[in-house]
Amino acid sequence: MNRLDQQLAFVLEIDKLKTILRQTLLTDSSRRENSAEHSWHLAIMSFLLAEYAAAPVDILRVIKMLLVHDLIEIDAGDTFAYDVAGNLGRAEREQRGAERIFALLPEEQGRELRALWEEFEAFKTPESKYANALDRLQPLLHNARTEGGTWRIHSVARDQVYRRMEPIRTALPELWPVVTRIIEHACASGWIVP
Amino acid sequence: MNRLDQQLAFVLEIDKLKTILRQTLLTDSSRRENSAEHSWHLAIMSFLLAEYAAAPVDILRVIKMLLVHDLIEIDAGDTFAYDVAGNLGRAEREQRGAERIFALLPEEQGRELRALWEEFEAFKTPESKYANALDRLQPLLHNARTEGGTWRIHSVARDQVYRRMEPIRTALPELWPVVTRIIEHACASGWIVP
Repeated sequence: MNRLDQQLAFVLEIDKLKTILRQTLLTDSSRRENSAEHSWHLAIMSFLLAEYAAAPVDILRVIKMLLVHDLIEIDAGDTFAYDVAGNLGRAEREQRGAERIFALLPEEQGRELRALWEEFEAFKTPESKYANALDRLQPLLHNARTEGGTWRIHSVARDQVYRRMEPIRTALPELWPVVTRIIEHACASGWIVP
Repeated sequence: MNRLDQQLAFVLEIDKLKTILRQTLLTDSSRRENSAEHSWHLAIMSFLLAEYAAAPVDILRVIKMLLVHDLIEIDAGDTFAYDVAGNLGRAEREQRGAERIFALLPEEQGRELRALWEEFEAFKTPESKYANALDRLQPLLHNARTEGGTWRIHSVARDQVYRRMEPIRTALPELWPVVTRIIEHACASGWIVP
């Protein structure tokens, strides 16, 4: 296959991310969110909220990272953050997904996208920490809007939520008061197990 | 409302774009595509195919433009490209949508996003021409994959498709042979009215 055909095959392949459902509900509770529209949402959030990032970030790299961070789910599926059993074997499933999916592209482009995904997962650079914080913030905002959403549906406990939201405290410190207010309100409302 | 509250209200508001359905089918034909996941798809395509842009583009501006180009559909709805009646009054509906939606943000951010949307619509800068070409290319690829998709469903004619795809010829010239091959194959297959 020539270079352009490889790129177009990849473009068609990633359409499948629109069929990967996350646990998070849309804010109108009409259905579960898929990973493609979730990635779009995070990408817009990343440039609107960049002023709150704890360290300066290369916003183009953040946006690209967020656009591709879930592509491996086309093979590996979405794993619910609070599902302990589901998270066993997750890393291997995702590695295998990365092997196949990024290899569809011309080599240097596949390498670039894979590096962005690995950077996101490694949680080390300012860009990765900021992107991961947004990836925690968005479902929290949705849960707050949908009477507890996935917290209520899956009987998630207060300390689990605080542990999950921890990246926001350091990467988006000005957002932390909002996060604690939402969590405490959800506890008081019976949406989170105390 | 303070600045952060305005930004978070906007983040929740734009979730509604996930419920705006386009005519285009997913590549597995399982359902119609929504405008949020469509925007995600175009944003990824924009940096993977940038090498084919007829003129150099500021890729960060292209990506932001594509991420926000359909936000006004939250109020105005999606208008099918080949629907003549539906396109009457479209500009006014979209202007009213822009007035409301971008005004939810802090002023300078609302101005930036509105300017990106207006740039996309005006079709004058290299970024806008490139972004618009991608916005034509992606549904064409989906129609090719779904036995004619919306062309077949809505009995679209060959000259209508060529007119619709015209921006690709100038903004993505190396893609034009792919486009004509797909259209001619669709005509030969009876998916497009000759």
